[in-house]
Amino acid sequence: MIDDQKTRVAVDIYGQTYTIVGSETSSHVRLVASMVDERMREISSRNPYLDSSKIAVLTAVNSVHDYLKLKERIELLEEELNKLKG
Amino acid sequence: MIDDQKTRVAVDIYGQTYTIVGSETSSHVRLVASMVDERMREISSRNPYLDSSKIAVLTAVNSVHDYLKLKERIELLEEELNKLKG
Repeated sequence: MIDDQKTRVAVDIYGQTYTIVGSETSSHVRLVASMVDERMREISSRNPYLDSSKIAVLTAVNSVHDYLKLKERIELLEEELNKLKG
Repeated sequence: MIDDQKTRVAVDIYGQTYTIVGSETSSHVRLVASMVDERMREISSRNPYLDSSKIAVLTAVNSVHDYLKLKERIELLEEELNKLKG
């Protein structure tokens, strides 16, 4: 595997620094990190007694839920496309 | 808001029990929880020194990343559909 394009990006999420290694652009990594940070703060404000580990797990739960919803939508769109293409 | 359909589902994720409240079916909630649990265990096996809070945050990061990738794909599919529909 050529990993010339591996980037290392340091981001702050909910007061902690994480180094994200991957092939994505640093702006994509920063966008993802800011979305996770925002979601954690939302969940924390609605559940002030949860510790940060549980807040992070619930953030992951919400994100996987949203992912599955988009996946269902993609299946419908692909079905529609295939019909139109005959 | 009518919330007759609110469900409360207790799930186990990475050794902790969470009660998820929402309008989704309990089987959907269980699927999401098992995906989060699996991802956390994957990340943990690759990074054995991370604590559970950081593992959960990185799981959320991966999930939001996957979500954004699907969103890009939906935009492309919708564009293609609109072209075909004229």
